[in-house]
Amino acid sequence: MNVLVIGANGKIGKQLVEKLADDSGYTPKAMVRKEEQLQQFEDMGADTVLADVEGAVDDLAAAAKGMDAIVFTAGSGAQTGADKTMMVDFDGAVKSMQAAEQAGVKRFLIVSAIGVHRREKWMEKAPYYSAAKHYADEWLVASNLDYTILRPGLLTNDAGKENIKVDVDLERAEIPREDVANTIKASLKDNGTIGKAFDLTTGESPIELALQNL
Amino acid sequence: MNVLVIGANGKIGKQLVEKLADDSGYTPKAMVRKEEQLQQFEDMGADTVLADVEGAVDDLAAAAKGMDAIVFTAGSGAQTGADKTMMVDFDGAVKSMQAAEQAGVKRFLIVSAIGVHRREKWMEKAPYYSAAKHYADEWLVASNLDYTILRPGLLTNDAGKENIKVDVDLERAEIPREDVANTIKASLKDNGTIGKAFDLTTGESPIELALQNL
Repeated sequence: MNVLVIGANGKIGKQLVEKLADDSGYTPKAMVRKEEQLQQFEDMGADTVLADVEGAVDDLAAAAKGMDAIVFTAGSGAQTGADKTMMVDFDGAVKSMQAAEQAGVKRFLIVSAIGVHRREKWMEKAPYYSAAKHYADEWLVASNLDYTILRPGLLTNDAGKENIKVDVDLERAEIPREDVANTIKASLKDNGTIGKAFDLTTGESPIELALQNL
Repeated sequence: MNVLVIGANGKIGKQLVEKLADDSGYTPKAMVRKEEQLQQFEDMGADTVLADVEGAVDDLAAAAKGMDAIVFTAGSGAQTGADKTMMVDFDGAVKSMQAAEQAGVKRFLIVSAIGVHRREKWMEKAPYYSAAKHYADEWLVASNLDYTILRPGLLTNDAGKENIKVDVDLERAEIPREDVANTIKASLKDNGTIGKAFDLTTGESPIELALQNL
């Protein structure tokens, strides 16, 4: 399964590419913005492509060509302002969906954020962030793509626990980035996750089982 | 015709309410955020309502109840940051559409900005602004509302010339805010503008005629 990882240089993206590269069932292609970010992914044995979600849809479509699935896990990060949140987390996601359609790639997974589908749960200090994530998700639902929307809770750098909880609505709780990567990887293989959107935190079910019970 | 003007306290909004109040064919209701903004509209003989597009959809729906049309001309303005652009120009617009649907008001006119339907024409220095306007428009097109999308060029405070140019794509040129208000007023009466989106600048056709030839 050929998987384009958009936002490969992010903390979730890196772990995802590494996990996919280590599994003979997947051929990951890491999409990054800068030359100097390429080497680490080549060292993992992953394919790579230089492209930017702030760039042209045509370039994204070229990167997506021949893929079986796209994972969007790009984000402007906590250090940038609302302008970048708009252009990367929202507009960049929409452009990636347009690229998927243009390239004929049906399967599209997006990493969102817990609770953004409920306006009353939006971040008080940064509602624009919740809005950007929410509207990207809504755009995906309205598309013709075979989507999965993962809305993880508070991200940590802890080692993965391999046990999660998934549901339409969960209490805000932690989850290691590694387990988000694990859950994306498992979702790619589980067609039962197509058309699903769910909150995701650390829990007590093995990942594959949790997804089956969605 | 009962018309809710969202963003009545803006420069276009004020002139629109005044023009509608001066015409026996319309009953405008000015929606504003602050108590102290009410009096000027009462002095015009317009109805008024206190509500905020950053507030609850239910409140917006209550304001919209019994209206025949809604005009969205709210904007966060040039003095605020991208966060407010996201929450007012985009999210506020979407919430207003949801309120229209909730209140059973089918007709919805939005004031957008010239060229935002073409990514290559987005503002280089503030792409998030163009994006916010564009996505609000896209949301409206995807809704079940009877929409009209007006995309005026460079807004001036000149007196209205009563002559405009309208087309899907126009060169960036000026238009007085008063003529935007005039064009909204004329569009409200012209059902031929339903389902239309157009750039709008000063031109050589009388407003009603220009709209008829869309």
